[in-house]
Amino acid sequence: MNKPLLISMGDACGIGPEIIVQAFVRGLADGCCVVGDVAVMRRAVRQLGLGLPVAQLEQVGEFAPPNCLPVWQPDALPPGLAELPMGRISAPAGAAAARCIEQAVQQILAGHATGLVTAPIHKEALHAAGVPYPGHTEMLQALMARDGVLPPVRMMLANPELRTVLVSIHVALREAIELVTFERVLETLRIAHRAAAGWGQVSPRIAVAGLNPHAGEGGLFGDEELRVIAPAIQAAREQGINASGPFAPDTVFMRARHASGHPGEFDLVVAMTHDHGLIPVKYLGVEQGVNVTLGLPLVRTSPDHGTAFDIAGSGLADPSSLVAAMQMARRFVSAR
Amino acid sequence: MNKPLLISMGDACGIGPEIIVQAFVRGLADGCCVVGDVAVMRRAVRQLGLGLPVAQLEQVGEFAPPNCLPVWQPDALPPGLAELPMGRISAPAGAAAARCIEQAVQQILAGHATGLVTAPIHKEALHAAGVPYPGHTEMLQALMARDGVLPPVRMMLANPELRTVLVSIHVALREAIELVTFERVLETLRIAHRAAAGWGQVSPRIAVAGLNPHAGEGGLFGDEELRVIAPAIQAAREQGINASGPFAPDTVFMRARHASGHPGEFDLVVAMTHDHGLIPVKYLGVEQGVNVTLGLPLVRTSPDHGTAFDIAGSGLADPSSLVAAMQMARRFVSAR
Repeated sequence: MNKPLLISMGDACGIGPEIIVQAFVRGLADGCCVVGDVAVMRRAVRQLGLGLPVAQLEQVGEFAPPNCLPVWQPDALPPGLAELPMGRISAPAGAAAARCIEQAVQQILAGHATGLVTAPIHKEALHAAGVPYPGHTEMLQALMARDGVLPPVRMMLANPELRTVLVSIHVALREAIELVTFERVLETLRIAHRAAAGWGQVSPRIAVAGLNPHAGEGGLFGDEELRVIAPAIQAAREQGINASGPFAPDTVFMRARHASGHPGEFDLVVAMTHDHGLIPVKYLGVEQGVNVTLGLPLVRTSPDHGTAFDIAGSGLADPSSLVAAMQMARRFVSAR
Repeated sequence: MNKPLLISMGDACGIGPEIIVQAFVRGLADGCCVVGDVAVMRRAVRQLGLGLPVAQLEQVGEFAPPNCLPVWQPDALPPGLAELPMGRISAPAGAAAARCIEQAVQQILAGHATGLVTAPIHKEALHAAGVPYPGHTEMLQALMARDGVLPPVRMMLANPELRTVLVSIHVALREAIELVTFERVLETLRIAHRAAAGWGQVSPRIAVAGLNPHAGEGGLFGDEELRVIAPAIQAAREQGINASGPFAPDTVFMRARHASGHPGEFDLVVAMTHDHGLIPVKYLGVEQGVNVTLGLPLVRTSPDHGTAFDIAGSGLADPSSLVAAMQMARRFVSAR
C-alpha cells in the first residue's frame, strides 16, 4: 500500500473543493487523497457538471478505484456543509477547514500519509468558528509544538523562475524591520539551506536581499545590513551554508531569476520583508506559485491564492497553482 | 533651427560616453546633442573601434552635419579628462560630470534646448570633487530652486510594461515609513497625475500600493493605509485624480503589468518605498528601464543603470536603456 499525499479541502464555500476536483479530473492528482467532507466534494463535482464518482475511504491509505475522487472524511465535521451558500464567510466552513487540517496532520504524523497540500481557507471564517489561528502556518506550528515550543518555520514562495524565503510574513512593515535580527536571519538561512534538499540541492546558492535601498549603500541609508545581515551571512558561511550578500533588493531577484536564456545566479533568495519577496514571485502571475512551509517536521505546500469567494462555485477557478503545489510536495516527499 | 535634446556625458570613466556613441552610431539619437568633453567622446569612439567623426558645436542648437557626433563642450571643464583611467573613481571626472549637467540645465532654461537625458554619474566621484549632491535628482532640484525652495520631485521608473512612481527614494526603510504622510502621498499623486500628460494621458488610472503586507489587512498589520494612504487617495479623488487603492503591494504590480495578452488594469502604480516600486520594474531586466524625474520644470530622463566601472571602455555596455530614455524624453517634450 502506497502512502498517499493528503489534500485538505479548505473552506467549503471557496474555490478549494472545485480546484481539487479539477486536478483529479485532469489526471494530475495521482497518489493523492482528499481530507474533507464527502458531500462538499460531491457538490463541487456537480457544480462543474462532471460525473466523477467520489469514493469515501475508511482510512487514508486505503486502495481507491481508479478514475474516482478518493475522500477521507474525518469524524466530527459540522453537518450541512454542502448546503452552505458559496462565496460567504461561514463559521461551520471555518470549523470544518480547521478540523480537516488537524486530522490530516495527525494522519501524517502517525505515518499513514506522506505530506500535506492545503487548499485555501478563509481567515474570517476561522475566526467566526473560534479557531485561534489566522492561517495555516500558525495552526501547523501549534499542532507540531513540543513542550509548548513552536517549531521555527519560514514561508517560501516558489515558481519555476524564482524561490524566495521570507524572514517575516504577516506583520506591519515597522515590525518586520524589528524582526531583522541576527538570530532570525541566521535561522532563516539555516532553514532555507536544509529545505533545499527537498528539491535535490545539498548546497544551494542562497542570495540574501538587504532591507534598505541599495542594501544600505554602505550605511548611508540604514545600518541593518552592516549590523545584522552581513554578520548573519558570515555566521551562516562558517556553518557551511553557501550564502552571499546582502544585495540590493531591487536587482537581486532579477539576478536570481531562472528563465529561458537567463540562468539565475542563485538558487533562492532570502528576503527581509513579505513584499520584497512576494512582489517578484507574483509579478508574472500567481498561476505557478506555490507556498511551502519550511522548518516543519512534515512536508506542507499550498497554492498561492485564497478562497476567491467572488468566483467560488462558478467553475472559473484555475487549478494550476494547486497542481503545482502537489508536484512540489511530491518532490519534497521523495527527497526525504 | 530645431532645438536639440541634450545628453549629458556622465562620468568620463564610466560607460556613459560609449553608450552615447553607440546610440548615435545606430541612428537612434536624431536631434540630440551631447554636452560633454570632446576628447572624452573621441576616446569613446576609438575604444569602440569606430570612425564616427565628432563635431564640436559652438552652441547647442547649431546645425551639425549628418553622421557625426555633435558635442557641445561647456567651458571650464577640468583638463586631461580623456587620459583618466577607465573604471576608476576620479575627482576631475566627478567635477566634469557635474559641470555638464549644470550647463545643460542652463541651456534648457534659457530656451536653447528641449530636455535632458543624463548618462550615469558616480556618487563617489562627485563626492571626491566636492560636489554637494549625491546624485542627479538632488542636483537638479538645487539648480531649479526658487528663493531657496526646492521643487518637489518624484522618481518614476518606467519600462514598456510598468510605470511606478515612488513616494521616497534614497533613505533607510525606517525613514521611508516616516515619509509616508498624507501630504507626501497626496503630492506624489498630484505629480504623477500631471506627469501622465507626458505620455498623452489626461486621466491616468493610478493604483496606490499599500505600505504593509496585504495593505495592512484592515489595520491588523499596520495602520498607515487607514490613517494616511486611504485619506490621501480620497483627497486626490476629490481633486479629480483617478487614484484607487491602497492595494496589496504583492499583487498590484502584477495587476498593472501591460504585456502581450495581459492588459494592465492601471496606467501607473504609486509605491510607498524604493524597493516596492523598483523590484517589479527591474525583475525582467533593466535594458528597457527609464528613470524619469517628475515635478521639475524641465524634462529629464536617464537610463536605469550606473557607470558600470567593471566593463567601462570594453565596448560591452548595452545602450538600450539610454536609447529608451531618449525616446521617453522626446515623448515628454512633444507633449508639453
